[in-house]
Amino acid sequence: MDVETEMTEQTLAAYMLTLGEQAKAAARAMAMASSESKNQVLLTLAERIETEAEMLIAENHLDLDAGKANGLDAALLDRLELNPARIVGMADGLRQVAGLADPVGQVSNSAVRPSGIEVGQMRVPLGVIGIIYESRPNVTADAAGLCLKSGNAAILRGGSEAIHSNQAIGKLIQESLAAVGLPAAAVQVVATTDREAVRHLIQMQEYVSVIVPRGGKGLIERVSREATIPVIKHLDGNCHVYVDADADLDKALAIAVNAKTHRFGVCNAMETLLLHKNIAATLLPNLQKAYEKFDVELRGCALSQGLVQGLTNAVEADWETEYLAPILAVKIVEDLAQAIDHIEHYGSHHTDAIVTENYTTARRFIGAVDSSSVMVNASTRFADGYEYGLGAEIGISTDKLHARGPVGLEGLTTQKYVVYGSGNIRE
Amino acid sequence: MDVETEMTEQTLAAYMLTLGEQAKAAARAMAMASSESKNQVLLTLAERIETEAEMLIAENHLDLDAGKANGLDAALLDRLELNPARIVGMADGLRQVAGLADPVGQVSNSAVRPSGIEVGQMRVPLGVIGIIYESRPNVTADAAGLCLKSGNAAILRGGSEAIHSNQAIGKLIQESLAAVGLPAAAVQVVATTDREAVRHLIQMQEYVSVIVPRGGKGLIERVSREATIPVIKHLDGNCHVYVDADADLDKALAIAVNAKTHRFGVCNAMETLLLHKNIAATLLPNLQKAYEKFDVELRGCALSQGLVQGLTNAVEADWETEYLAPILAVKIVEDLAQAIDHIEHYGSHHTDAIVTENYTTARRFIGAVDSSSVMVNASTRFADGYEYGLGAEIGISTDKLHARGPVGLEGLTTQKYVVYGSGNIRE
Repeated sequence: MDVETEMTEQTLAAYMLTLGEQAKAAARAMAMASSESKNQVLLTLAERIETEAEMLIAENHLDLDAGKANGLDAALLDRLELNPARIVGMADGLRQVAGLADPVGQVSNSAVRPSGIEVGQMRVPLGVIGIIYESRPNVTADAAGLCLKSGNAAILRGGSEAIHSNQAIGKLIQESLAAVGLPAAAVQVVATTDREAVRHLIQMQEYVSVIVPRGGKGLIERVSREATIPVIKHLDGNCHVYVDADADLDKALAIAVNAKTHRFGVCNAMETLLLHKNIAATLLPNLQKAYEKFDVELRGCALSQGLVQGLTNAVEADWETEYLAPILAVKIVEDLAQAIDHIEHYGSHHTDAIVTENYTTARRFIGAVDSSSVMVNASTRFADGYEYGLGAEIGISTDKLHARGPVGLEGLTTQKYVVYGSGNIRE
Repeated sequence: MDVETEMTEQTLAAYMLTLGEQAKAAARAMAMASSESKNQVLLTLAERIETEAEMLIAENHLDLDAGKANGLDAALLDRLELNPARIVGMADGLRQVAGLADPVGQVSNSAVRPSGIEVGQMRVPLGVIGIIYESRPNVTADAAGLCLKSGNAAILRGGSEAIHSNQAIGKLIQESLAAVGLPAAAVQVVATTDREAVRHLIQMQEYVSVIVPRGGKGLIERVSREATIPVIKHLDGNCHVYVDADADLDKALAIAVNAKTHRFGVCNAMETLLLHKNIAATLLPNLQKAYEKFDVELRGCALSQGLVQGLTNAVEADWETEYLAPILAVKIVEDLAQAIDHIEHYGSHHTDAIVTENYTTARRFIGAVDSSSVMVNASTRFADGYEYGLGAEIGISTDKLHARGPVGLEGLTTQKYVVYGSGNIRE
C-alpha cells in the first residue's frame, strides 16, 4: 500500500489486522525454515541494499527534506540520514548476523526419566515480534535481520519521519525473502504514519508474541503502559562504579574515567561514582584532573566537596538521574554496605561495578547488587551484546523476566518441551 | 493483624503497601541466604506442620463451618479440607523441595572475551513473587516452599473461604523463618478477604516482580487483564493426540486411553483425538470399546460417525473445548498436514502428541506443532513438573516468554550477567 498519514479508525483496524494475520501465517513458515535459507535471505538482502544504495538514498532524501521542512533539529536529521557509509554498515550487519549460530532447534537438558520418556527443551522462535522504533532507518534492516535469523516474523513500525526510507528498506527485505522462497510477509513495515497504528500493534495479542520498543523513555513508557502483549523493554541506565577501600587506584582511575567519558549518551555510562572514605582523599584529586580534560562537571556530596575545590553541590535528584551527559555525581561512603544500599536505592538495576582487590568484598558486591550486569574491575561500558559475545543485540533489557541485560538472538526465542516415548503411558 | 473482611480503600492501600515494602526488604536478605539456611526453614516448617496438626485442623474447621454455612458445594468443601493425610502431604512436599538442588548462584555460559573480561550468567531470585490461589490451603505451604527455596520473598493471597487455614499455615511459616534467623516477612499471607486486595497486589510493580495465579479461568483472566506486573499464567489445556497412518496401533490404543481417562479434570488430559483416515476404521471400534469402560462420551466428525455407531455429532465448539470431563472429540483427518493445521487452529498450545513409527513424520510433527510440550508415542499426561524431573511445580505456563510448560524452581529465578575484569576499560 502507499504511505498514508492518517486513516479512519476502521480502515486502520482492518489494515493492522491484515498485517497481524499475514505475520502469523508467515511465522509458521519461518519457524520451519532451514538455517541455510534464512542466511540466504540475509546475504541476498545485504547485496540488494548495496546495489540499491542510490534508490535508498533518494528515498531517504524525501524524509530528510520533509524533516527540514518540519524543523527537525540537526541531531535528529543526522540520525535520520542514510549515507553510503551507513548503507555499507547495514549490509555488513546483516552479513554478521548470517554468520552467527542459529539458536533454533537446539535441545538442552535432555534426560531419560524413570518412566522411560526422554525429555528435553528445544529452542524455538517466539512467533511474531513487533518492533517500534524511532528515527534511525538502519534499525529496519538490523531488527529484520535478527528476527529472521531467529526464525520469527516481524512487524516493524519505524518513526514517521523515516517512513520513505523504511518503506524502501522493507521492500528490499520482502524481495529478498521472496527470492529465497520464504513468505514476503515475514517482515512487514507498517505503511502508515498514523500514531494509532502503534496502539493496534501493541494490543494484537492474538497475532503478536512480544513487543520490543527501541527509543526514548517516552516511547517505552507509553508502550509498556498500553501494551496487552509482553514487552521486552529498555529503560534507564543509572549506572554506578564503587571504588572500594581495597581498590588498586590505578585501575580505579582508568575504569572511572572510561565508564564516564568513553561515550556520554549511552545507557551503560557511569552516572554516579561512589568512593570509600579511606581512598577518597587520594583518588578524588586525580579523578578531578582527569575529568577536567573531558569537561565533566562533578556534583559532589558534602564530604567530597570538603576534599577538593570546584565541585557543584549534589542534591537528592542527582543520585536518581541518568545524565547521559558530561556530568557525574560523586558520593563518599562509609563502607561496602552503604555503597550497596545506595545502588539498590537509587540505581536502575542496569549495570554496576566495583573496583577492589579484596576477594570477599568482590563476592559480596556480586551477590548483593541486583542489576542486569554486575562487574568487578571492569568498565560499565562493557555491558553490551557484542562485548558479551552475543554477536548482535536487539536491545538491553531492564526487565527481570525472559531476557535480562543485552538481548541477542536467544532472547527472541523460547523453549518447548519435546518428549520422546515408545508407547509410554502414565501409571 | 486479625482477619478482616472489608477495609476502607485507604486502610487497604496502606496495608498492602506495608506488605510490599516488607517483602522487598526481606527479598534482599533471602537472595543472600545460603542453601543450608533455606533448607533449614523448609525442614523446620515441615516438622511444625506435623506437630501443630491439631491446631491446623481446628483452624480449618472454622473455614469448613463457614463454608457449610455459606452453602459451598461438596467438591469445594473437599478441596478446602485439611485432614491428617493432607497435612502429612504438605510436610512431605516441603521435605522434597528441601532435597532439590538450589538454582541460585549457578553460573552458565561463562567465557573470556577478546577484551579480556570474563562474562557469565548467574542465576538469581526474581525478588518478590505474588501468588493468588483459590480454595486449597495446602497451596500456602507448597508455594511458600518453592519461593523460599528459590531465594524469593512471597506474598500469598489465598481464597477467602480458606482464610483461617491459610493464616494458621502462614504463622508457622513465619515462625520457621524466624527460628532460622531469616526475615519472617519473606512469606506474608494477606490477612484480609477484601477482594480489592488482589487488585493492589497485581499493580504493585515497585514491590512485586511477578504474579503467579493458580486457579480457575476466571481468576487467571482477571489477573492477566488487570495486572501491571508480569504474570506467569496457566490457561487452557486443549490437548490433542494424533494417530498417524504409520502408528503402532497397540501403542495408539494405550496412549489414547491413558491420555483421556487417567484423570479427567486435568489440563494435560486429551480433549480431541485425531485419526489418520487409513487407520481409523481399524482403531476406532477398539477405542470405542475401551472408552465405554470409562463412560467416555465420544463426539465425532461425520466420517467417524460413518465408521462406528453411537457417536454424538461434534460441532465446531467441540474442537475448541477443554472438557475436563469424560467427553472426547474425535476427528478423522486426511494427513499429517491436516492434523497439524487442526492443532494449530483449535489447540491451546499446551500439550500435543503424535503416535507414529515413521521417523520423518515424527520430526515434522515436533517441528511444526507450537505447543509447550510436543510428544511422540507418549501420553499427554506426562506434561508435568514431576514427570519432567523439575522436582516440583508452581504451575504450567501457557505463556511463551520467560517460562513455558511446567515451571519449577528455575522459573522463579532470573539471570544476571557477572563480569570479572582486571582493570579492563573499553577502547
